[in-house]
Amino acid sequence: MSFIRETIVTTVSGEGRVHIAPLGIIADGEHWIIAPFRPSTTLDNLTAVPLAVVNYTDDMRIFAGCLTGRKDWPLVPVDRCPVPRLEAALAHSVLEVISVRDDEVRPRLVCRVVAETNHAAFTGLNRAKAAVLELAILVSRLDMLPKEKIDAEIAYLTIAIDKTAGPDERQAWEWLMERVRDHRAAS
Amino acid sequence: MSFIRETIVTTVSGEGRVHIAPLGIIADGEHWIIAPFRPSTTLDNLTAVPLAVVNYTDDMRIFAGCLTGRKDWPLVPVDRCPVPRLEAALAHSVLEVISVRDDEVRPRLVCRVVAETNHAAFTGLNRAKAAVLELAILVSRLDMLPKEKIDAEIAYLTIAIDKTAGPDERQAWEWLMERVRDHRAAS
Repeated sequence: MSFIRETIVTTVSGEGRVHIAPLGIIADGEHWIIAPFRPSTTLDNLTAVPLAVVNYTDDMRIFAGCLTGRKDWPLVPVDRCPVPRLEAALAHSVLEVISVRDDEVRPRLVCRVVAETNHAAFTGLNRAKAAVLELAILVSRLDMLPKEKIDAEIAYLTIAIDKTAGPDERQAWEWLMERVRDHRAAS
Repeated sequence: MSFIRETIVTTVSGEGRVHIAPLGIIADGEHWIIAPFRPSTTLDNLTAVPLAVVNYTDDMRIFAGCLTGRKDWPLVPVDRCPVPRLEAALAHSVLEVISVRDDEVRPRLVCRVVAETNHAAFTGLNRAKAAVLELAILVSRLDMLPKEKIDAEIAYLTIAIDKTAGPDERQAWEWLMERVRDHRAAS
């Protein structure tokens, strides 16, 4: 498998409406592949306007927020690009779709890097941030995974939250756990 | 518990000999606490020269390398500071020890931030990097943890390595797994 960066991707519709979505971008030589599952607003937007801003952030509230209906994160304009970036991006890349490998389930949009900009200092790895990311992935698959597997992974990830989280990571974790509980109450 | 940044800390001895060590620094209001276990070269160095450079990097080969006898990573000088930084640091902080809460096992060195500099763009979270960090922590505790727990965690972490690692993360993972195998062969 290939190296995957876990990012927040911003795109715009033909009418200029901004969409933000947590997406892994997949390394493909000098290019990056965006591979959204159908149906997907990101896919629709990139079909209309083939430019994506890939936001590199470790603010886990944004990952957790996007998965739990909290999509209103501050945006700022990007020079010579119709697509804005997250204000919270430590850095961003502007990607342009140069070809599409179509697929009924998950088309692969091959992108070239148009520009890259550094905004703010990375302040180090944090185990709780990584645990929130793993829980976010679990939450995006609640319908597909057995309850026991989810429980075991949450028990494991909770250790890093208890030991190394700050208030933002706790908030992100809590939003996701609320979603886990809601899903169980509903099923 | 408090927010912990997982970093590589550089220090120098009274004779100017550089030491690099993976260390979590613990948030304490506006200060950061470095809490090395005794005995520790970092502790000896900070007693002689109370300045630490905290390197923020996501190059997991450095974390894995430091735990497996590979400590020779390129260093560059830091302005107005006797302690160098890692060339691979995306950013760094210079910390000065301002007080010590002594302890026979693990003294806590309270530090203030003297300077912070951004060097290179963060390029996004990666699940394999986080998995390498978790394996590094396991490897640092091989003598204390039951084999079954280690095996179960490695099985879990391997999923992220298989799905999202690049060559550097695979290299780091392999160095650590070699250490796990050597430890088992020896015991």
